[in-house]
Amino acid sequence: MAPSPRDAAPHLQQAMNETVESVNKTIGRLLPESDSAEGRLYDAMRHGVLAGGKRLRPFMLMQSAALFNVDPARSRRAAAALEMVHCYSLIHDDLPAMDNSSLRRGKKTVHKQFDEATAILAGDALLTLGFEILSQEDTHPDPHVRIELVNKLAFASGGQGMCGGQMLDLIGESEEFDLGTISRMQRMKTGKLMSYACEAGAILGKADEPHRKALCNYAHDLGLAFQVTDDILDVEADPDQTGKPANQDENAGKSTFVSTMGKEQAKARAEMLVAQATRHLKIFEGRATLLKDLAHYVLERRA
Amino acid sequence: MAPSPRDAAPHLQQAMNETVESVNKTIGRLLPESDSAEGRLYDAMRHGVLAGGKRLRPFMLMQSAALFNVDPARSRRAAAALEMVHCYSLIHDDLPAMDNSSLRRGKKTVHKQFDEATAILAGDALLTLGFEILSQEDTHPDPHVRIELVNKLAFASGGQGMCGGQMLDLIGESEEFDLGTISRMQRMKTGKLMSYACEAGAILGKADEPHRKALCNYAHDLGLAFQVTDDILDVEADPDQTGKPANQDENAGKSTFVSTMGKEQAKARAEMLVAQATRHLKIFEGRATLLKDLAHYVLERRA
Repeated sequence: MAPSPRDAAPHLQQAMNETVESVNKTIGRLLPESDSAEGRLYDAMRHGVLAGGKRLRPFMLMQSAALFNVDPARSRRAAAALEMVHCYSLIHDDLPAMDNSSLRRGKKTVHKQFDEATAILAGDALLTLGFEILSQEDTHPDPHVRIELVNKLAFASGGQGMCGGQMLDLIGESEEFDLGTISRMQRMKTGKLMSYACEAGAILGKADEPHRKALCNYAHDLGLAFQVTDDILDVEADPDQTGKPANQDENAGKSTFVSTMGKEQAKARAEMLVAQATRHLKIFEGRATLLKDLAHYVLERRA
Repeated sequence: MAPSPRDAAPHLQQAMNETVESVNKTIGRLLPESDSAEGRLYDAMRHGVLAGGKRLRPFMLMQSAALFNVDPARSRRAAAALEMVHCYSLIHDDLPAMDNSSLRRGKKTVHKQFDEATAILAGDALLTLGFEILSQEDTHPDPHVRIELVNKLAFASGGQGMCGGQMLDLIGESEEFDLGTISRMQRMKTGKLMSYACEAGAILGKADEPHRKALCNYAHDLGLAFQVTDDILDVEADPDQTGKPANQDENAGKSTFVSTMGKEQAKARAEMLVAQATRHLKIFEGRATLLKDLAHYVLERRA
């Protein structure tokens, strides 16, 4: 069963549900169960990547690609690869040495369901599989497109992106960060991969520079808004809805947007970012309505 | 200081030393120190990838590429990327949840020198950087070549290769494997990445199918021979020379070639594999002498 995105406008909700369903199907096909001796690895990978989730990044990728009439069979593969990379990072973040989380989306985390060693390997193999899928001809016949998809994903998820942001996050447990450092950390940890989602759609569609840039700017602002609302949800939300314990950040002593600027200012910041994000979509002359709606949904979500 | 490969013929030893030096320089350039807030991540990555090592895979890659007159500036980049992927796997294998090793090449392992979380992230970031380097134009101007380098590396190092082999290795701690399963495990865990080393040289050189196939077959047999001699060294070698404690496998209760077939039979098997490996090189009509010498060195090494 696909989780239903709460508080989304009905047409957005329907489109997001469709993405959840189609991308999950694609992931399941690209990552089948295995009855080999090492099948446990595939079970753990599937547990980590198929245990629910809103598939926000796949949605952004596929909606961006649709603006340039990309064949959905192609954008779905890129979306599945991106989601694998996102989920590998969650599996590793949940490990005892990192955030030490037992629950994710209301289910046992991979190291709880399996064991630590298996969780480490499952994350490694998902990251690797993400690159493998992007490099395959079915993703796009033009090798220029495929190699750019690989290159930008590596940049967004490596030391200058997600891994670097996660390192900063860990350092932030013992050091107090100012607002500039928190913003930079969140941009690296979450923002760059969200930007990649939209940019990948533009790459698949061989978009011109202004349209590509507009999508990147939109995703950049949306990603930051998403992180600010995540920090607000951490102190405000119902664990039954988010599927994870409340006040995790505060308990870990982490600097967040809320701890630094207060809840009310954080909400105002998120609203400002969402308004800015939607303005970047003007270049699409009213065709990017679902991406616009998504921005408002990020502001209003409860999980 | 480059470690000197013991018992190698002088000209092989010199060529290997040159590879160590030039590849280390390339790695250092592609992975510079960073004074950013997250600089600790780069320190850990550099510790993991620049703490010695014979650079066997880079040597195989560069020697294979040289057979097709590939510009060494290109093959060195591919070799550096491959070594990063090899070293990421060592960093993760050494973690407490996996092999729980404190020493590697006579130095503290990454999680001992830094901490577990940093070691997990450093491994993740090295794997990612490997793909990023391969995807960059400096590695080869032809995107067909770059995307094939990425594709084959992902295949060799993911669930059907290195990660799957490592999963089998963990399962082998509590299950007794027969010789067929041990061979399959070692092929996945070590062999495929060694095969990739030679195949990557052929890809960079746009080699024809017979020459490419010959190199893959050579590397396949050499990889297996390497693993058999590794198992022999585990019970025989001087820890001062190998830089790691003796009898690690036996103490972990792992099935190895030695535990399954006995030391003498294992030695005979390694000799047979090396003879077979060198026969595949005949197609190069005497030009692949260093690869041939390397095969004999694998048999005679003490570390």
